[in-house]
Amino acid sequence: MNTFGERVRLTTFGESHGPAIGGVIDGFPAGFKIDFDFLARRMAERRPGQRGTTQRREDDLPEFLSGLTPEGLTLGTPIGFIIRNKDTRSQDYGKLATAYRPNHADYTYRAKYGLRDHRGGGRASARETACRVVAGALAEQWLLARGVAIEARLTQVGTIRGSHEKLMEEVERVRLDLDSVGGIVECTISGLPAGVGDPVFGKLNARLAAAMMSINAAKGVEIGDGFEMATKRGSEVIDEFYIDSDNESGNSVKTRTNHNGGVLGGISTGMPVTLRVAFKPTPTIGKPLPLLSEEGETFIETVPGRHDPCVAVRAVPVVRAMAALTVIDSIL
Amino acid sequence: MNTFGERVRLTTFGESHGPAIGGVIDGFPAGFKIDFDFLARRMAERRPGQRGTTQRREDDLPEFLSGLTPEGLTLGTPIGFIIRNKDTRSQDYGKLATAYRPNHADYTYRAKYGLRDHRGGGRASARETACRVVAGALAEQWLLARGVAIEARLTQVGTIRGSHEKLMEEVERVRLDLDSVGGIVECTISGLPAGVGDPVFGKLNARLAAAMMSINAAKGVEIGDGFEMATKRGSEVIDEFYIDSDNESGNSVKTRTNHNGGVLGGISTGMPVTLRVAFKPTPTIGKPLPLLSEEGETFIETVPGRHDPCVAVRAVPVVRAMAALTVIDSIL
Amino acid sequence: MNTFGERVRLTTFGESHGPAIGGVIDGFPAGFKIDFDFLARRMAERRPGQRGTTQRREDDLPEFLSGLTPEGLTLGTPIGFIIRNKDTRSQDYGKLATAYRPNHADYTYRAKYGLRDHRGGGRASARETACRVVAGALAEQWLLARGVAIEARLTQVGTIRGSHEKLMEEVERVRLDLDSVGGIVECTISGLPAGVGDPVFGKLNARLAAAMMSINAAKGVEIGDGFEMATKRGSEVIDEFYIDSDNESGNSVKTRTNHNGGVLGGISTGMPVTLRVAFKPTPTIGKPLPLLSEEGETFIETVPGRHDPCVAVRAVPVVRAMAALTVIDSIL
Amino acid sequence: MNTFGERVRLTTFGESHGPAIGGVIDGFPAGFKIDFDFLARRMAERRPGQRGTTQRREDDLPEFLSGLTPEGLTLGTPIGFIIRNKDTRSQDYGKLATAYRPNHADYTYRAKYGLRDHRGGGRASARETACRVVAGALAEQWLLARGVAIEARLTQVGTIRGSHEKLMEEVERVRLDLDSVGGIVECTISGLPAGVGDPVFGKLNARLAAAMMSINAAKGVEIGDGFEMATKRGSEVIDEFYIDSDNESGNSVKTRTNHNGGVLGGISTGMPVTLRVAFKPTPTIGKPLPLLSEEGETFIETVPGRHDPCVAVRAVPVVRAMAALTVIDSIL
Repeated sequence: MNTFGERVRLTTFGESHGPAIGGVIDGFPAGFKIDFDFLARRMAERRPGQRGTTQRREDDLPEFLSGLTPEGLTLGTPIGFIIRNKDTRSQDYGKLATAYRPNHADYTYRAKYGLRDHRGGGRASARETACRVVAGALAEQWLLARGVAIEARLTQVGTIRGSHEKLMEEVERVRLDLDSVGGIVECTISGLPAGVGDPVFGKLNARLAAAMMSINAAKGVEIGDGFEMATKRGSEVIDEFYIDSDNESGNSVKTRTNHNGGVLGGISTGMPVTLRVAFKPTPTIGKPLPLLSEEGETFIETVPGRHDPCVAVRAVPVVRAMAALTVIDSIL
Repeated sequence: MNTFGERVRLTTFGESHGPAIGGVIDGFPAGFKIDFDFLARRMAERRPGQRGTTQRREDDLPEFLSGLTPEGLTLGTPIGFIIRNKDTRSQDYGKLATAYRPNHADYTYRAKYGLRDHRGGGRASARETACRVVAGALAEQWLLARGVAIEARLTQVGTIRGSHEKLMEEVERVRLDLDSVGGIVECTISGLPAGVGDPVFGKLNARLAAAMMSINAAKGVEIGDGFEMATKRGSEVIDEFYIDSDNESGNSVKTRTNHNGGVLGGISTGMPVTLRVAFKPTPTIGKPLPLLSEEGETFIETVPGRHDPCVAVRAVPVVRAMAALTVIDSIL
Repeated sequence: MNTFGERVRLTTFGESHGPAIGGVIDGFPAGFKIDFDFLARRMAERRPGQRGTTQRREDDLPEFLSGLTPEGLTLGTPIGFIIRNKDTRSQDYGKLATAYRPNHADYTYRAKYGLRDHRGGGRASARETACRVVAGALAEQWLLARGVAIEARLTQVGTIRGSHEKLMEEVERVRLDLDSVGGIVECTISGLPAGVGDPVFGKLNARLAAAMMSINAAKGVEIGDGFEMATKRGSEVIDEFYIDSDNESGNSVKTRTNHNGGVLGGISTGMPVTLRVAFKPTPTIGKPLPLLSEEGETFIETVPGRHDPCVAVRAVPVVRAMAALTVIDSIL
Repeated sequence: MNTFGERVRLTTFGESHGPAIGGVIDGFPAGFKIDFDFLARRMAERRPGQRGTTQRREDDLPEFLSGLTPEGLTLGTPIGFIIRNKDTRSQDYGKLATAYRPNHADYTYRAKYGLRDHRGGGRASARETACRVVAGALAEQWLLARGVAIEARLTQVGTIRGSHEKLMEEVERVRLDLDSVGGIVECTISGLPAGVGDPVFGKLNARLAAAMMSINAAKGVEIGDGFEMATKRGSEVIDEFYIDSDNESGNSVKTRTNHNGGVLGGISTGMPVTLRVAFKPTPTIGKPLPLLSEEGETFIETVPGRHDPCVAVRAVPVVRAMAALTVIDSIL
């Protein structure tokens, strides 16, 4: 339930307002030198307090507790790490502690467990994704050393597409409106050799879909041309094979187009794997919201707290991390 | 790899032109009476030879080998079943045995395994999904007895939406053009109580996404308003909670709208779970296709054989089956 | 539950008196040529009707349904197989259908599932182990091709140790007494390189112990000197390392003794892995037994049917098979 | 590999001389009040510095980081905890850092991973078992609240059986001899209802065997009469069923004897589950030992450091913990 992967397995734990969040990475190959600056950069990308994100400050740098030599070489044993929670201001939520916010997981956690941590989303908080970025950054480094590069970028905010600048202007506009907005993150995995993935239930695209849908606020995922492919005729989307004679080493079989997004029959073709993830707008907005108390009364109130107007902004490094974790797990 | 689920687990085996396909359902609750007519109806829905599907005839009725009493009660032990392959005409494919068809898994299976069963798609053939429909039909019955109903329907063929009649006319049109076409299947799971699913990596929507993406030719999946939600502001998609006082028994917490598709934080809300799956056009069409031989030569030729012009038509019962298998696994 | 292994996974199904038993081997390496004569020899070793075993005749040769080319090469896809049940004489058991036999699983299956297949032990019958021998014989061949050899032999029957002839005489003596007797099977895995196995919970010895204890009637397992090691001082059981300079290739680190049975810290040392498994006497004997009816009445009656006087005899190939399955799973 | 269990899953991490060891307990039922005094007692039982154990002092009390309300109620989310390493004196080992000690995992870890943490056994150190005792103590409490009690006790040290006092005298004698000694721990699980466990590969005894064999220095495990049962005739070990009419509530089916140790066909009978675990003598003793350097030279030297003369002493709470974790996992 709180574990991702089969060969390289990330188990995460932690509530947003408890003592700490953390994770255990099991099965990571031994003898790999971790670049902690690389990790810090990835952590910085999802850190709150950036433009377009919440004001909550977090250093968010993990403390590694095991699995590494003093020199930063992986031992092959589980890599445990924690990130202490600070600046949590749990009093912010005290007043609404017994109410279910719409579009949030308050009610469903209560329905499942019979009790819940009211403080700031608890386990359902996006803060959990910091642990995914830690593990993903390690996986990404390992993959990079093998020629597999993973990129992710925000390509749409609401109905706006365009440059990062243009998208962030829309986020700012939404913030000033005390509202939130959805967005789309695209991801490309290049350098992946042909033959990665499994047939039937363990298809690479199925695993990527699960990985992406496990990110908070994700509502849709597509591979290659995705939903658009459903509108096309077969003759329009033929990814014709050819031999790339310029390619001196490695796999020279390529396709002239890549409608299928680098996956056929659940297994990589050697072309870039492309995918898109849709994120819903942040549930909590600056305007008053309809709430339901645990006793069954509805009321309208403004929910205090600092919230990103667009979760998709900070989801970019999480999409990248989940892609890295999926690929390292499939490749090993 | 060839197993789906954790508590109720389906393992399938079989190539399209080998002796048989089959499966093992492990963890199915004991003491449940199987309705074999119900099963036969589901099998009929995915059987080739219907309007809009291939001409290959299959009885496709499974022979159950274990896990049932002579009276058809489940024993709690694994339910093994096989479906013999008949009328396979593997000679159809002989000529193209060493060529990679575009948009098919021929090349990727070869890249992964070093060898492959050339006959009719082998393990990558959609014939494998017959086993999913067998297991799904058992799961669906069990769920129905607990008030959980699963519906699936074709809602789009290419760019055409409308009645089943209208959609099938488009399929027929495409067939006469010797082409194929994509489509969209929608699925609704109703009667599911609140609290089903897991947080973080085991989110109900993540599992459903993996289940759907594991179906042959699936290229996209979305929950609730899905990709459209990415284009909206938070204030536009609030699923307001209320107490349904007419609901005398069970869960009376409902939402006035269902943009989230019955899942919040990865856990069911008690509202219907809604999802949509995009299928690409059938790779093989009646027109000549560009092929690549295993020796690296490209050539153009018409691929013989019987092919559905629209895989989405026969995917409907498979979507339903995978939804049923996902839900029974999450609910137990 | 009915699946063994993580990388090479065997799932079995089938009751002793249902239509068939069978299994699915998933994850077996592609491109390996199966030697069916080898398989037939292993099947013959556990077949009833040998000296010291029951009179029930079974051909017990599996029909392979998938995962192999017509030439017997593995495809890398799941290998499904079935063995039809014949000569089952389920009427033998009719009279005692509603009674719990002592030392048998009749009562516990009923307690777990609420119902059970009364015919001949159902799923709890040792007939299920035929499927293990099928899969084990494939694994053993693959291991042999990599220099790993697995041997198993009966070394004790009751209190008798000695030659096979002497042990079988004791079995015959017990049969004439209308009684049954326990026994011990030893197993040696040689040629295993150092470094196989996992630390902590996935220790090679832990996996072997689970594998052996999952065999019907197994009551104890030990690695290396096992229980005797508990009686010794540290200075008496030091496996001193040395470099074997005669060993020109491969691993030249060896130990002068092998009290630890080829495993240290859960990981293979490169020395032979040795283990012993204790089997209890066959529960059913030719003499009258105390029975308990499902209604709670105790009575004494002779249980008809054909029974091995010593299950350990036919357990030999099963021990070998489970060792092979454990090792291939750990080595891949 | 570093995870135990399927429904309640413990993942541990940490080297003996790194910053900390710790674990994550996933799937623990929600709403259970933890008794921290109970936990502290269990931790005290395996703490070094007791009579018969090493002199290394450890508080060994875990810091809980997640999964609990401030009041100590389980949230149903993963329970993360860490135990900082103090007083590690890693310089003790510096001199022997590049040598393989006999009967230790030094060499096998190096063979598996290519590098290892030389400091004090690293991941292979028995210190890891502290995390098992934390998780086991939580499981044990939960089981106790449901009437399932788990006891473990040392019953043999070397060839000595008898009272705890007598056994500890033997341990002391061995210590004065600068030697170490093996031992046997027995465990009884009482109050377990009939019907717990799975057939075939997931037998309760198979899981218990794997759990026990995963403990450092364990070399053998047996259920019920175990190896002695192999020496008996069937007529001597019949566990006759009867109805216990004094038992007003719950399960009244009992057996007059319990040779099978509370398990038949891998499923609990309702009688106490009994098992015995053999531990080898502590590998490191106070006398000089033959060592092998990484460069292949053998030499004899006294290995410094503090070592228990009998690991079985501190294994008692670990056996109990592993039994509790196995049972909670099987019962849920």
